[in-house]
Amino acid sequence: MDVINLLKSHRSIRKFTDQPVDDELVESIIGAGLAAATSSNLQGTTVIRVRNPETRSAIAELAGGQTYVETAGAFFVWCADLHRSSVACEMAGGDFHGGVTEHFIIAATDTAIAAQNAVVAAESVGLGICYIGGIRNDPAQMTELLDLPEQVVPLFGLCLGWPDQDPALKPRLPLSVTLKEETYDETNDVAGIESYDEHMREYYLERTGGKVDRTWSADMSSLLGKESRPHMRSFLESQGMNIK
Amino acid sequence: MDVINLLKSHRSIRKFTDQPVDDELVESIIGAGLAAATSSNLQGTTVIRVRNPETRSAIAELAGGQTYVETAGAFFVWCADLHRSSVACEMAGGDFHGGVTEHFIIAATDTAIAAQNAVVAAESVGLGICYIGGIRNDPAQMTELLDLPEQVVPLFGLCLGWPDQDPALKPRLPLSVTLKEETYDETNDVAGIESYDEHMREYYLERTGGKVDRTWSADMSSLLGKESRPHMRSFLESQGMNIK
Repeated sequence: MDVINLLKSHRSIRKFTDQPVDDELVESIIGAGLAAATSSNLQGTTVIRVRNPETRSAIAELAGGQTYVETAGAFFVWCADLHRSSVACEMAGGDFHGGVTEHFIIAATDTAIAAQNAVVAAESVGLGICYIGGIRNDPAQMTELLDLPEQVVPLFGLCLGWPDQDPALKPRLPLSVTLKEETYDETNDVAGIESYDEHMREYYLERTGGKVDRTWSADMSSLLGKESRPHMRSFLESQGMNIK
Repeated sequence: MDVINLLKSHRSIRKFTDQPVDDELVESIIGAGLAAATSSNLQGTTVIRVRNPETRSAIAELAGGQTYVETAGAFFVWCADLHRSSVACEMAGGDFHGGVTEHFIIAATDTAIAAQNAVVAAESVGLGICYIGGIRNDPAQMTELLDLPEQVVPLFGLCLGWPDQDPALKPRLPLSVTLKEETYDETNDVAGIESYDEHMREYYLERTGGKVDRTWSADMSSLLGKESRPHMRSFLESQGMNIK
């Protein structure tokens, strides 16, 4: 059950030591990531490692001032990629009809699955990680910075490095809410959310020395009380993805 | 490096023994899955375990006759879920503005990340798995079978069980193509794809006793030479997801 315990002890790490991450280890981790299942063997993922300090600084800023993008031992952008398979399609004499919503779902799912495999590989050797959804704040600038062709979408960033902090585990919703039997039965959901709200309140209070008194429901209200990144639909279309 | 070797030895399993998968083990695996990182703690995932043989038979059929959906020790549908967080939003007095494309990306990414964590947990104890993208052949029927509310999308199925086969590893594209430095530099891609085409040709020939002589490029040409599941865009919108 060692691997299961490893998975259950995940925390995001945002503070890293200066120790670099060896290139050979990076290749092993990304190779393990890309060994994951892929829909119809499409392998709709490209990983771009960014080392240039200026590019990392620009990404940190557009992601909302996430300085660990600059300080992590290694930083990657995980891209949902249909471009490479379109090249292969043409190499085999085919006529590419890609970019529909289903293709975006395939490539995005492939990418998230491969990234999480890489994360598990990294955490298994003691590295810490942090996903950076904030790169979607300005996907057009990301596309320019990384020189992405059409049918390639920057989905999220990933910081990797040797941890210089030891944060507490964040509680998760109870399985009574998230794992259902046969159908989407909501009978116990409100009670489960209320119980989780109390856990999260305790977590915030303890982590902030009593300064933050919030619940998960309040977080969801802040998050979903407004539209999020309303440019994403037109950005995807401008990259020839999720087009119809 | 044991975990990295585990990850690198993934194969999809489509033939299972009759041995059931213990409920306690299932909870441990799904719990490990849902311990993965989640964007802004949204936890946009609901897992539905389907035991009813009639429902499993219906799903196997709509997925294109994938009989292992019926025979696997356990079967799950992983749903991208914004409904639960909309309930929480309203519990906290918020006004839900969810369902835009970015929200679909968050929930789908959360779901794929959690599922892959569960897959690693399962494979670490010797179980075999197979993702079932085929449930998206008829997502409307899936929605009806599982009684899904709005803002819940059936993303993929997952078969879990004790393996009754030992298939060969499927080769992956070389890292020279899939892992790039600084920008999307395509210089080496055609050579990398050609080399991979030869590996895949050998893999197919060996696996089929010389009957199948194909390359990855030919596979991509078949796959992307036509639109795939053209109903997905309007289905997502009918569920209040990816709406604008």
